[in-house]
Amino acid sequence: MADQYARSREHSEPTEISAIRWDEPPEGPVLVVLDQTRLPAEEVELVCTDAPALVEAIRSLAVRGAPLLGIAGAYGVALAAARGFDVEEAAAALAAARPTAVNLAVGVHRARTAYHAALAETGDQDKAAEAALAAARTLHRQDAEASRRMAGHGLALLEELLPGGGHRILTHCNTGALISGGQGTAFGVVLAAHRAGRLRRLWVDETRPMLQGARLTAYEAARHGMAYTLLTDDAAGSLFAAGEVDAVLVGADRIAADGSVANKVGTYPLAVLARYHHVPFVVVAPLTTVDLGTPDGASIEIEQRPGHEVTEITVPQVPVAGLGGGTPVAPLGTQAYNPAFDVTPPELVTAIVTEEGVVSPVTGEALDELCARSRRVTMG
Amino acid sequence: MADQYARSREHSEPTEISAIRWDEPPEGPVLVVLDQTRLPAEEVELVCTDAPALVEAIRSLAVRGAPLLGIAGAYGVALAAARGFDVEEAAAALAAARPTAVNLAVGVHRARTAYHAALAETGDQDKAAEAALAAARTLHRQDAEASRRMAGHGLALLEELLPGGGHRILTHCNTGALISGGQGTAFGVVLAAHRAGRLRRLWVDETRPMLQGARLTAYEAARHGMAYTLLTDDAAGSLFAAGEVDAVLVGADRIAADGSVANKVGTYPLAVLARYHHVPFVVVAPLTTVDLGTPDGASIEIEQRPGHEVTEITVPQVPVAGLGGGTPVAPLGTQAYNPAFDVTPPELVTAIVTEEGVVSPVTGEALDELCARSRRVTMG
Repeated sequence: MADQYARSREHSEPTEISAIRWDEPPEGPVLVVLDQTRLPAEEVELVCTDAPALVEAIRSLAVRGAPLLGIAGAYGVALAAARGFDVEEAAAALAAARPTAVNLAVGVHRARTAYHAALAETGDQDKAAEAALAAARTLHRQDAEASRRMAGHGLALLEELLPGGGHRILTHCNTGALISGGQGTAFGVVLAAHRAGRLRRLWVDETRPMLQGARLTAYEAARHGMAYTLLTDDAAGSLFAAGEVDAVLVGADRIAADGSVANKVGTYPLAVLARYHHVPFVVVAPLTTVDLGTPDGASIEIEQRPGHEVTEITVPQVPVAGLGGGTPVAPLGTQAYNPAFDVTPPELVTAIVTEEGVVSPVTGEALDELCARSRRVTMG
Repeated sequence: MADQYARSREHSEPTEISAIRWDEPPEGPVLVVLDQTRLPAEEVELVCTDAPALVEAIRSLAVRGAPLLGIAGAYGVALAAARGFDVEEAAAALAAARPTAVNLAVGVHRARTAYHAALAETGDQDKAAEAALAAARTLHRQDAEASRRMAGHGLALLEELLPGGGHRILTHCNTGALISGGQGTAFGVVLAAHRAGRLRRLWVDETRPMLQGARLTAYEAARHGMAYTLLTDDAAGSLFAAGEVDAVLVGADRIAADGSVANKVGTYPLAVLARYHHVPFVVVAPLTTVDLGTPDGASIEIEQRPGHEVTEITVPQVPVAGLGGGTPVAPLGTQAYNPAFDVTPPELVTAIVTEEGVVSPVTGEALDELCARSRRVTMG
């Protein structure tokens, strides 16, 4: 059994959410993660003292979201090194904890590489462990820094698109501190607008079937004291029709070379509604999300999720007996269409906000140029 | 306590759904209704032996849907008369069982008027009870007949819009035999297409927050052996984008004089998606739904439902403890925007199918003309 235990969260900083943090109590270093499966009912931290505990937290979705998984993977390697466990074994287990999140493997790789380089150079196990931890902290800091820069660029863009403030922003799924080392992508921009006194209201799509909006975005909005309102995904239409939406801000799971945006299912209908109502539709995502190897939207492979996420209702803390651990709501044997993502073509995207700047209008050339500029900055 | 008891449904006609029926066992006449709150998990009939039992069934939503409520109200008066209860008291209680459904009061009024006319004419209580039952049966038959005629007109329209069959139709909410004396409105047309071998697939929107699509439309589709697939409301966008939707068919709760259509929330986004993808968007509704007293869409008052329908998840047969009897999924205190309906403007509606014919293009003049023709037929 992995050494992982839960403890109630201390509310020392009520408005800051820390999805992951390294801690060094007298008993030795630990990695503390917020258990997202219990939100918003309970704020419980899982304290991981070894890599298997973290693998378990990742598999159970206590820790989720691509950027955060990368950070967790790097810290997991550092934890194994600091505690004197087998670093290779830990790295392999962490990288394989979830197969689809490339960030996880990348984060593990960065810490592992730093560990081996320091070990080869100094021959000192402690110094190598420090190097792994330093690599994890750098990744964590870089992601927070990317959040901050996206928020700055996004806020300036909003000011340009919607001068005067009083923004009523609609968002979909969860894109805040829970998935990032910083304040997140789209939610980071919303938070910056809130802090600048320019946010009038955040409209939060509940985001079926997993309800990341109702459970997690509403939680983050509430903690920051935002004026927010929850709605079912299909109620967004009448908000647009009533002129109650000034802009749509969403994140991205992958952006193809032509500027097509794969994001949580339900994003594309919002883009169509935004276009029909002449409302800006803005995507906020770090450049690591841009995949120049994927030429266009049609080339993005869309994950099909199990049907029971739709045919059954799962309620936290209520034990039930359906196929997927939920209570069946549709007739037994009902087939479901349950794509995890949809694709929004570049012509429906007003702008893509990255840490390196804003692409608008969204074209493959502009995106390519931004990525090239970023590579020059990184290499220079 | 009202005299209402449940019994398991006999499957003598597995492909026919009877939401309501009059029965005369040796113990005396009863009104038998299918308990829609238990669907699709259980097919249980509620046997009502007096009006208070029916009022209870209406209040608990065991019986729901505007046309069906009208039929139920009329039968309820007939039941009171046949059993020798106070008809005035029964009529008053039934008409007030739910305040917003005009059909309910209209149905009660028709049976009550027939009862009093026969009583005044013959002085015979039994003959008056028979007259009330005859009025209820007429209303029931007329609604079934309207369904049949809408299905015929709708099928012809589909053939015209999409020659060659193989229709892939997307629908929203529940519009079948469960809300009608016949096969319903939009679902009635889908069923006609299915029986004519022209339906390739029915895409069923789950219809948040009350899941009428997942619970009831999927149930009706399954019983008729249709090829159907359930999806979250926000997944419809990628179906349109993939060219998998040939037409959208929905019902209506109210149609204004200019042709604006109020229907279950989530209808309007489908209309916008349909327009963006050049897919026909068809409304199927009886002329009783057309309200010439409401000039336009903006004049339609939209019912705002309790927020707990969105902030809590309710699972059938699972006892829980939230404000609305569900389990909270959003942070406590979360405000919700939860309109029951939205309004689709006439320019987004390809056609309105009624029992008297099809209006296309949808204009106030065409609608007015159809209603006038119907009045001439009725009076002639």
